[in-house]
Amino acid sequence: MSNRQSFAEQPGAGSSARAVRQACRSGALSSHTSGLASAHVQGNLVILPQAHAADFLRFCQANPKPCPLLGVSEAGDPALPALGEDIDIRTDLPRYRVWQGGVLADEPTDVRALWSDDLVSFVIGCSFTFEHALMAEGIVLRHVEQGRNVAMFRTSMATEQAGAFHGPMVVSMRPLRAADAIRAVQITSRFPAVHGAPVHIGDPALIGIRSIADPDYGDAVEVMPDELPVFWACGVTPQAALAAAGLPFAITHAPGSMLVTDLLHHQLAAF
Amino acid sequence: MSNRQSFAEQPGAGSSARAVRQACRSGALSSHTSGLASAHVQGNLVILPQAHAADFLRFCQANPKPCPLLGVSEAGDPALPALGEDIDIRTDLPRYRVWQGGVLADEPTDVRALWSDDLVSFVIGCSFTFEHALMAEGIVLRHVEQGRNVAMFRTSMATEQAGAFHGPMVVSMRPLRAADAIRAVQITSRFPAVHGAPVHIGDPALIGIRSIADPDYGDAVEVMPDELPVFWACGVTPQAALAAAGLPFAITHAPGSMLVTDLLHHQLAAF
Repeated sequence: MSNRQSFAEQPGAGSSARAVRQACRSGALSSHTSGLASAHVQGNLVILPQAHAADFLRFCQANPKPCPLLGVSEAGDPALPALGEDIDIRTDLPRYRVWQGGVLADEPTDVRALWSDDLVSFVIGCSFTFEHALMAEGIVLRHVEQGRNVAMFRTSMATEQAGAFHGPMVVSMRPLRAADAIRAVQITSRFPAVHGAPVHIGDPALIGIRSIADPDYGDAVEVMPDELPVFWACGVTPQAALAAAGLPFAITHAPGSMLVTDLLHHQLAAF
Repeated sequence: MSNRQSFAEQPGAGSSARAVRQACRSGALSSHTSGLASAHVQGNLVILPQAHAADFLRFCQANPKPCPLLGVSEAGDPALPALGEDIDIRTDLPRYRVWQGGVLADEPTDVRALWSDDLVSFVIGCSFTFEHALMAEGIVLRHVEQGRNVAMFRTSMATEQAGAFHGPMVVSMRPLRAADAIRAVQITSRFPAVHGAPVHIGDPALIGIRSIADPDYGDAVEVMPDELPVFWACGVTPQAALAAAGLPFAITHAPGSMLVTDLLHHQLAAF
């Protein structure tokens, strides 16, 4: 909590994002980024050897709803100036996950020791931005209200394969009354860079979800009788594709420990 | 059918709309306008004595989804130049309905004999425009496919009252699979002047509809197990409000016999 306090003392929203990254870099912040620099776009991170980068880029291009790319680095360059002038992707997230042969090997707080000229970084949009837009319009999100993680499910909808990358689309679910669901389609359609419009509304079985009470990731959230479950493509999809590819080596963010960028949510609005 | 052939022979879409109106004016066309001058916006018509015009205008303003106003005439003036240079609202629809004390009194093919300096014409957007946009994007509409009228229902959603005008919102229902329903929200959101986005998706009982198989107007259309019923505000709403008001005198279009305007559908797209 003392970390959050110090970020809040920064003079503006822009420096607040930078302050979060500096706190990660210094080791002062090693936990979640949820709620920090809240006007700012956060991103999922995937770091891959160059040999797999072209296929992963193609996978993201072919699956823009679950894998909207906010930024891609030059090979070997830890900078992502389009997302923040000072970003060093090796240190600026609170915590990372290191994958070897598709299996979780380590959860370090920086990856300088693992860096090489061969690595390419991908930053993928995350639902915090569209949730911010929904809440700004007065739509109540139950998982936020209840302080839970959003419920996420593997579906029967397959992603488009590219090279070794393939697997099911993973979706997040938010229960909404019909009028809010319609408004949510309108609002999230404005944000294609952070998953855009929902991919499904209504009967979970139609997309291969057996039990809405039993999510594959995150926390279960109740759907009331006067609500529809509304499903958005989710940034866990590329992590599932990464696991399916069984690459010798990869780095991702640790769950909830995102890259906080200088971009403001409203800058991603398409119209 | 010979009428339709002659309209199709007109050189352009603009003159096609004019040709439909001229065919109404000459008496050659006295039936439905569905499918005629298909690139053109058609409108519902309400003609009222000036004493009630301000309240009706206020009713439309307060209920823009069921009652989107495309045009309002000067009192006593049968012209609506914003919708077509040559329009004479007294003759340019195939058939009219004359209401006395809220009761249907006559269905003439022109209303010149009933005209007075006291009458104001209101043209209200109709769903043909958004259906055109949906079909142009490859969304199949079952009632169109089956050659039926769209199913319409009185709901438990009340309109905002204005003067004597009040009553339930009437909705039209189109069954769509979830992905098409989401796309349909996006597409129809672009057309606020023709009812805009849906007002409800899913359980009909939540908006007071007892049986989806038993519409209050139009024809029943089956909803398949993998589909959601999607409900849009409907231009029958102002007619219901008109009946509820029990005015001494009013004129409307006869069902399916609309004003064909010079406006092109895409001109109504908000973005």
